[in-house]
Amino acid sequence: MEVGIVGSTGYGGVELNRILSNHPGIEKCILYSSSLDGDDYTEQYPHLIDLTNESVRSIQFDEMKQLDVVFLAVPAGISKNLTPKLLGGKAKIIDLSGDLRLQGPEEYEQWYKAEAADVSILGEAVYGLTECNREAIKGADLIANPGCFPTATLLALAPVMQGHLIRPGSVIVDAKTGLSGAGRKPSLSSHYSETQENLRIYKVHEHQHTPEIEQQLNCWAHEPAPITFTTHLIPMTRGIMTTIYADLLEERTTEEIHEEYLRYYHESPFVRLRPIGQYPSTKEVWGSNFCDIGMKVDQRTGKLTIVSVIDNLMKGAAGQAVQNMNIMFGLEETTGLQYYPIYP
Amino acid sequence: MEVGIVGSTGYGGVELNRILSNHPGIEKCILYSSSLDGDDYTEQYPHLIDLTNESVRSIQFDEMKQLDVVFLAVPAGISKNLTPKLLGGKAKIIDLSGDLRLQGPEEYEQWYKAEAADVSILGEAVYGLTECNREAIKGADLIANPGCFPTATLLALAPVMQGHLIRPGSVIVDAKTGLSGAGRKPSLSSHYSETQENLRIYKVHEHQHTPEIEQQLNCWAHEPAPITFTTHLIPMTRGIMTTIYADLLEERTTEEIHEEYLRYYHESPFVRLRPIGQYPSTKEVWGSNFCDIGMKVDQRTGKLTIVSVIDNLMKGAAGQAVQNMNIMFGLEETTGLQYYPIYP
Amino acid sequence: MEVGIVGSTGYGGVELNRILSNHPGIEKCILYSSSLDGDDYTEQYPHLIDLTNESVRSIQFDEMKQLDVVFLAVPAGISKNLTPKLLGGKAKIIDLSGDLRLQGPEEYEQWYKAEAADVSILGEAVYGLTECNREAIKGADLIANPGCFPTATLLALAPVMQGHLIRPGSVIVDAKTGLSGAGRKPSLSSHYSETQENLRIYKVHEHQHTPEIEQQLNCWAHEPAPITFTTHLIPMTRGIMTTIYADLLEERTTEEIHEEYLRYYHESPFVRLRPIGQYPSTKEVWGSNFCDIGMKVDQRTGKLTIVSVIDNLMKGAAGQAVQNMNIMFGLEETTGLQYYPIYP
Amino acid sequence: MEVGIVGSTGYGGVELNRILSNHPGIEKCILYSSSLDGDDYTEQYPHLIDLTNESVRSIQFDEMKQLDVVFLAVPAGISKNLTPKLLGGKAKIIDLSGDLRLQGPEEYEQWYKAEAADVSILGEAVYGLTECNREAIKGADLIANPGCFPTATLLALAPVMQGHLIRPGSVIVDAKTGLSGAGRKPSLSSHYSETQENLRIYKVHEHQHTPEIEQQLNCWAHEPAPITFTTHLIPMTRGIMTTIYADLLEERTTEEIHEEYLRYYHESPFVRLRPIGQYPSTKEVWGSNFCDIGMKVDQRTGKLTIVSVIDNLMKGAAGQAVQNMNIMFGLEETTGLQYYPIYP
Repeated sequence: MEVGIVGSTGYGGVELNRILSNHPGIEKCILYSSSLDGDDYTEQYPHLIDLTNESVRSIQFDEMKQLDVVFLAVPAGISKNLTPKLLGGKAKIIDLSGDLRLQGPEEYEQWYKAEAADVSILGEAVYGLTECNREAIKGADLIANPGCFPTATLLALAPVMQGHLIRPGSVIVDAKTGLSGAGRKPSLSSHYSETQENLRIYKVHEHQHTPEIEQQLNCWAHEPAPITFTTHLIPMTRGIMTTIYADLLEERTTEEIHEEYLRYYHESPFVRLRPIGQYPSTKEVWGSNFCDIGMKVDQRTGKLTIVSVIDNLMKGAAGQAVQNMNIMFGLEETTGLQYYPIYP
Repeated sequence: MEVGIVGSTGYGGVELNRILSNHPGIEKCILYSSSLDGDDYTEQYPHLIDLTNESVRSIQFDEMKQLDVVFLAVPAGISKNLTPKLLGGKAKIIDLSGDLRLQGPEEYEQWYKAEAADVSILGEAVYGLTECNREAIKGADLIANPGCFPTATLLALAPVMQGHLIRPGSVIVDAKTGLSGAGRKPSLSSHYSETQENLRIYKVHEHQHTPEIEQQLNCWAHEPAPITFTTHLIPMTRGIMTTIYADLLEERTTEEIHEEYLRYYHESPFVRLRPIGQYPSTKEVWGSNFCDIGMKVDQRTGKLTIVSVIDNLMKGAAGQAVQNMNIMFGLEETTGLQYYPIYP
Repeated sequence: MEVGIVGSTGYGGVELNRILSNHPGIEKCILYSSSLDGDDYTEQYPHLIDLTNESVRSIQFDEMKQLDVVFLAVPAGISKNLTPKLLGGKAKIIDLSGDLRLQGPEEYEQWYKAEAADVSILGEAVYGLTECNREAIKGADLIANPGCFPTATLLALAPVMQGHLIRPGSVIVDAKTGLSGAGRKPSLSSHYSETQENLRIYKVHEHQHTPEIEQQLNCWAHEPAPITFTTHLIPMTRGIMTTIYADLLEERTTEEIHEEYLRYYHESPFVRLRPIGQYPSTKEVWGSNFCDIGMKVDQRTGKLTIVSVIDNLMKGAAGQAVQNMNIMFGLEETTGLQYYPIYP
Repeated sequence: MEVGIVGSTGYGGVELNRILSNHPGIEKCILYSSSLDGDDYTEQYPHLIDLTNESVRSIQFDEMKQLDVVFLAVPAGISKNLTPKLLGGKAKIIDLSGDLRLQGPEEYEQWYKAEAADVSILGEAVYGLTECNREAIKGADLIANPGCFPTATLLALAPVMQGHLIRPGSVIVDAKTGLSGAGRKPSLSSHYSETQENLRIYKVHEHQHTPEIEQQLNCWAHEPAPITFTTHLIPMTRGIMTTIYADLLEERTTEEIHEEYLRYYHESPFVRLRPIGQYPSTKEVWGSNFCDIGMKVDQRTGKLTIVSVIDNLMKGAAGQAVQNMNIMFGLEETTGLQYYPIYP
């Protein structure tokens, strides 16, 4: 396969490059950037010196349409403009931005404070939460790759929300992320001295991933399932943890709930369930495509606490995108993604 | 005043030493340790070289009883044995451990998995949550200084729980702490390589601070107010943040709630309320005795989210202990505690 | 005294503000900024909420000239323009930038790649390396406050270079700094994800502090004493360590050298010498004005290794500036600077 | 091939496991431990859950002798006892400890403060600095895998010391390492709160890697080449940087020196030279087997400054061990080691 990465100089793009360069099914990986035409890639990323001779090319739609896959690793607001110009060619498109994830344009406009993509494109996009949507992904030409927080949250909730074990509307998601999720553009909030030895909360009840999560939960619950969602910046580079609280509809033991998860993820190689009494930490999935999950019932309050962790650049972005590509092209889901977490 | 610190070689003890050495009301501060008799203090803590000539003394009850205050900065399980031997002397006692905080010995035994202190001592101990208990503290001879998580949690909840604005039993506390809360004893869970670039959850629903928080909430709510309580280890040294979720009993705006907090903490110099739309981060109280609080109503779900931060070694331990000492001795509450947060 | 801080919104400025706000000799501290006129200071620095009501004022030379001291905490290139407009008034000036430190304008131009200050101003500026220059500082109206690396380097070298124990021209300075030295302006090199879990070398042989160090060494050695100087970025916020290597002119034991240092710094309360066999670490001076020094002779190679640490924002900037102010106004050198290092 | 790892629960062992599990030439990898017999490996390392079902076995010499390779990833002092019991079987041995690196037992005893291995074993061990010793490694049955600091130092010095461009005896090595080099055993010096936001120097002139470096330099220089060697602990997990200073024997430009390095490492895929004016940082080799090198002549002082970085657990330990294994078995040197650095 020949693939292209648009937005190759962002953190999502460079992670895609890392995976695809060692992917056995990829013959050629072309790097595009809207801002850095003709630059040597290793000026941006000296860690790739001697590993790539690629220059970064400017976007060329005709060329891109002839590739097998185009990954759009660009910020929200850009891919909605690129996508229409790429559709209709040979290339399948995997969009890592938030532009194509919300089915309702008015929701996009409310949460992203910008104009939504055209409805016809939104209708074509398949939500790429791999473990929950494999069949649709198989036949898709256009994937809306999930956000990092939605991936961690939805994988943690799928078994109990689909199994109607928790009360829709009771879900609280306390999400924590490392700084790489904020991208590579310098700002005061990602400035080292402001960040190190600091713990911040941000976008309280206002994060644009909220409707993406709710859209899926509503669908699973067959009723409105609004969440209370807060996000925190942790002084580390990679990793997301979501700590999720929900009311159990009926009294259950941790063992019963755990059993549900085991059943649900039986054939999902990238979701790992911790034994009862153990909980995952972010470093235990560092650099890998795993989502690790633990859970516990609080018998005293009737609440279920679920903990999930991912590497935000892998399962939360580039890794899941490649996992979706594998499925779209009939490859083993794990092809090119069999990275052990790096520890310590 | 002449004071003594028992457990002077722990992190709580050395922070007490830092404060008391510059406290205008303290003439002499004697360092005790059960483990390190006769050692030069600066062998343990070279950062104090040239600042102190004190040796660490072994515990001498007769001497200690003649001091004005004895601070017990020892782990749970030890102060319950020391306290009876110190009572009845001149010295007032401020215990920073968890031994004297729970009124019910059976609760202590359930959560601390150890024998509780004698009931007579428990009855004498006044809970030193300064802002909520000033009158009782004034006349106390024995203070049970609050735990770090309870301090951050209870200060965040006092106005709305005492004001009956939230539903008891609906409270979820997602707590996050830096590593210094784990003390100075090396262990795998505080080993640098296991901790850095890592985010962990621990003691899910099992933290021994749970009953301490609930004891106070029950009292404020006039009914049982169990909480769901989880704790997370953040890769940083100092700082606690609690993110608290609760159901509002009636519809309220953020402005109304904010007003309640302003009123409640009007005369509390160490509690700082953030303007609406702003939230505190841990570094903004680093090295100081402040507890900073922000809040927001989620109109979509009817829940209130409250965020509080403290420096766990200051307001969460040594700082609050000195604040209580000030009150017990009729000094200005802020004496010797007017440290600005150090930033960055 | 009434003082003003120009550049109050940078890290040097906010540290000056922290110190001066608790300084017993200061009655009023006015905050100036060339960029942020009229802003509430706590918008920039929420950690100061409730502690200051000051607004940031725009620069007003007439007003500033009537103050007792004006601190210029601005980047190089700016104070050389401000200084001439402030001279001749009542205010003594302490400049924290590099503009007035080099006596030779051509050196400034070579290393700073910009036009130097006027020679008449350079001639008036007294180099504020407190421990080595107290007499001149006492009578000065204009202080060139030393750079952070020069402070750590020169205090480490003064006893042996002035004592002619090492060979001029043999000195190698391997300097390491935390990120706060880079200031508050976001850039890729201070971006958290690029910095955390990373160790970088920068400005190899090219750092603009090189001539500042050499100017002083030349003077002490009475001959040219060029150094080889490299600087490294350490993933931490505060702290500088210099590891210095020099050839001993004659064979000496560590004990003999150590004795020289004790003698030299006998009356310098902010320089602390470690016992033989012990070496300082940056955290042991965190938040304080100390410079801690250790040393060892390598008998095998005849070289002397010296290690010094400072908090770059304190002894390396704001702390030393206030120390100089104290001396200029006849106060105890330690007034308002008696901060213990904060540990851990 | 079937291989065994002794010391599989240390950081070196788990890194070996990560590499060997994905190595195309390895059929079976058996985990041994002297301390943890029968344990599930994932109890120690939950990040490997679902990836390995291996139990940790106790050491069985007969079984181990039948393997193709045995990696000894044990602390110094242990492998010298294990090695004699393994020699003479089928298995080739790669020892990652310091026990077999020094040819002179008296040097071992001086620097390691312990009894040396038997001289007959020392004589058989081939020093596994791959890039400098490929021919001898090819035919070896017993490899003394280099230490982390010696690897970074010697690869940085080989071209100029072998090329007689620098003065033996003038070399100063200022080495910096992350904490994982200290292993997994908790101690105060690896305790998070003592380490974070801290920079320490340790073992000044006393590090046990000194004679290992000098042994090689002496050999290359054909004369004694003592070094001045200091080591620093950087608050990060992985990575070593050595900043090396040496006197040039004759005046040279940076370009000339750079050319020597390019020539020397022309056929070494894991050594990457930075363009003139650029220097490597540790994160740019994170998780990979690369050693990146930059250099600059200081025309003002006639000194050469060289900078090298490695991932201490990869090129500094497990990676180089596998690289040596590849050469011993006639595989491509890069087999199973083609990991891109992970960034950020």
